[in-house]
Amino acid sequence: MAFDIIEILTRSEKPRQKGLTMVLDKGMGLYQAEDLMEAAPYIDIIKLGWGTPRLFSEQLIRKKVALYKKNDIYVGNGGTFFEIAYTQKKTNAFFAYARDIGFNLLEISNGVIPLSASDKAEVIRHAKKMGFLVISEVGKKEPVEDRKLTVQERIAEAQSDLKAGAGHVIIEAREGGKSLGIYDEAGGVREDIANSLAQEIGLEKIMFEAPEKNQQAYLIVHFGADVNLGNIRPDEVIPLETLRRGIRGDTFGRL
Amino acid sequence: MAFDIIEILTRSEKPRQKGLTMVLDKGMGLYQAEDLMEAAPYIDIIKLGWGTPRLFSEQLIRKKVALYKKNDIYVGNGGTFFEIAYTQKKTNAFFAYARDIGFNLLEISNGVIPLSASDKAEVIRHAKKMGFLVISEVGKKEPVEDRKLTVQERIAEAQSDLKAGAGHVIIEAREGGKSLGIYDEAGGVREDIANSLAQEIGLEKIMFEAPEKNQQAYLIVHFGADVNLGNIRPDEVIPLETLRRGIRGDTFGRL
Amino acid sequence: MAFDIIEILTRSEKPRQKGLTMVLDKGMGLYQAEDLMEAAPYIDIIKLGWGTPRLFSEQLIRKKVALYKKNDIYVGNGGTFFEIAYTQKKTNAFFAYARDIGFNLLEISNGVIPLSASDKAEVIRHAKKMGFLVISEVGKKEPVEDRKLTVQERIAEAQSDLKAGAGHVIIEAREGGKSLGIYDEAGGVREDIANSLAQEIGLEKIMFEAPEKNQQAYLIVHFGADVNLGNIRPDEVIPLETLRRGIRGDTFGRL
Repeated sequence: MAFDIIEILTRSEKPRQKGLTMVLDKGMGLYQAEDLMEAAPYIDIIKLGWGTPRLFSEQLIRKKVALYKKNDIYVGNGGTFFEIAYTQKKTNAFFAYARDIGFNLLEISNGVIPLSASDKAEVIRHAKKMGFLVISEVGKKEPVEDRKLTVQERIAEAQSDLKAGAGHVIIEAREGGKSLGIYDEAGGVREDIANSLAQEIGLEKIMFEAPEKNQQAYLIVHFGADVNLGNIRPDEVIPLETLRRGIRGDTFGRL
Repeated sequence: MAFDIIEILTRSEKPRQKGLTMVLDKGMGLYQAEDLMEAAPYIDIIKLGWGTPRLFSEQLIRKKVALYKKNDIYVGNGGTFFEIAYTQKKTNAFFAYARDIGFNLLEISNGVIPLSASDKAEVIRHAKKMGFLVISEVGKKEPVEDRKLTVQERIAEAQSDLKAGAGHVIIEAREGGKSLGIYDEAGGVREDIANSLAQEIGLEKIMFEAPEKNQQAYLIVHFGADVNLGNIRPDEVIPLETLRRGIRGDTFGRL
Repeated sequence: MAFDIIEILTRSEKPRQKGLTMVLDKGMGLYQAEDLMEAAPYIDIIKLGWGTPRLFSEQLIRKKVALYKKNDIYVGNGGTFFEIAYTQKKTNAFFAYARDIGFNLLEISNGVIPLSASDKAEVIRHAKKMGFLVISEVGKKEPVEDRKLTVQERIAEAQSDLKAGAGHVIIEAREGGKSLGIYDEAGGVREDIANSLAQEIGLEKIMFEAPEKNQQAYLIVHFGADVNLGNIRPDEVIPLETLRRGIRGDTFGRL
């Protein structure tokens, strides 16, 4: 590696059980995707956000999926796309198509649709049985709806998801990172909620969506370099990893 | 298309008379431009923003224009570049050069310079006569100046522009999308103004600049999937189209 | 150049002594870097931000450095990376490695670590002796710490840095551009501070970090087209140059 005379913090390496970084691909082209692969050692999961893959040719999505998997990255859907399939009563066809096109991960959520914890658990078991790594998501996409969920309800649902076979549980924050889950209206971290979730669900099982740098730095300083973080923008993968390794101002000397 | 087992909303397809998406190219390189062409079915117009083309070699601009046109996308200038040419008394030379380099669209505006409605109409007729698709813009770039324009004045100018031959009228919002036209200081939509403009000018004839996602989602839910939207960032073309097709959380189940 | 029938403002051309533009590369891939080279005439310095180069292969960094230098752009480190090396007592090895990999610029700062003006001056002399163009930085990365520095202290440190051999002095603003140096909490320019610094240090010797467009436009209108500006995002190089040349709404007719 370049400048390897400089010591950096060690942390989990791929394949990781903790300290995962999940990147949001909201429709990248192939050159950008290839550029991103320079950062592949620091990416564990790439999520093709919501319905975006539906707008591309099958050939292009196959190429991207193959590129990501060749670089030892899990690839799957965003939860909304599952929810759309579920609403259209096409869950089985969706899972089969996802497997055929090369996905090895499925995200199961109920951010928009009403899906009870037990129905969600059944879907998770189904996906897991088909051989997918399953990630579930807890939280609502609409801030007013999301605020109605108590911390205890979030914990109970996460535990149900994990018991059904989910490998990790994502705490919703969307692309924006405000007024949802552990974030207040300004995007600041509500530490009491984050702590309760980590304590009851298990830090290694939680993945916090954390699109903004201040959120990433906060969670890394608070929970350590190996906190799982999601919805990272492609051009923020390297900056995030410098935060984890203590080689950016925000975390230098603080980990 | 990928995942075509999932139904999505149908809407106008290219070549579109309504539901246009106009993208702002503020100086992209060729790899990024080629990546963007994966989204070509969802792009109707690419505007080379303000004076940006002036800073590149003629060869590069020719290549980009040819690439965009090969993908059935209209290509033209941003209004400010016309205003600079007009101020330098080089309108004719500007139009001739634009045609020579391959533009098939011209944007005519008076966002900075004082240009009366009748003088603007004459310029529009001139551009139209030369065979360009003409888009006009209504509104000022400076918020204090823009606020002086009444809704009635905006409507009158838009109607004059359309009568002179403009295909569409853009409602100014710049790259930032705040404190201008239909947006308040926080970038929220002033629905009364938007409604009046749509009613008097005709929804299919208006193009709202809408650089932010909340603005796009609002206008799509309010006016429908085929509202014309402009100043879209290149990496927001696919996300915008998912909003129009009801496959993103913000519009899923709401169109 | 394209559209060269349109007159634009002339200003310093490369190699520039003033009016420098410094770009922040926070981990770009090679396609993006090649795209950026279309804008090379408007880029004087590229800084590989903080510890980012440490996360890539030596081969990739060598390629990027060579690409930038082939386009007559100075390439060097961000100050934090030096501070990390200094803290690890590896300044000599860091400088030697930087020279070996092709850097021709070093940034010396004390934004996180305590490094007295005289110790900083010694480091600057050392770097300069090795043949590097040296840029120093004044200011702290943590807003509360930064606010403790008086304007007089900033001026004194800048003058000490210049006397020791720094070619320019950067006024810290980080990637965010808020609550630091000459910027208030909303990112607005504190004109009194900017003026004092310019007057006492010399406008040509100062480089203001100015990541946001309103900051760039303000400083260009206030200090002229040839103000030195840093921490420019890659896709903002062309927009910035249009501001300098008077071909964007914000500066058209105002320079």
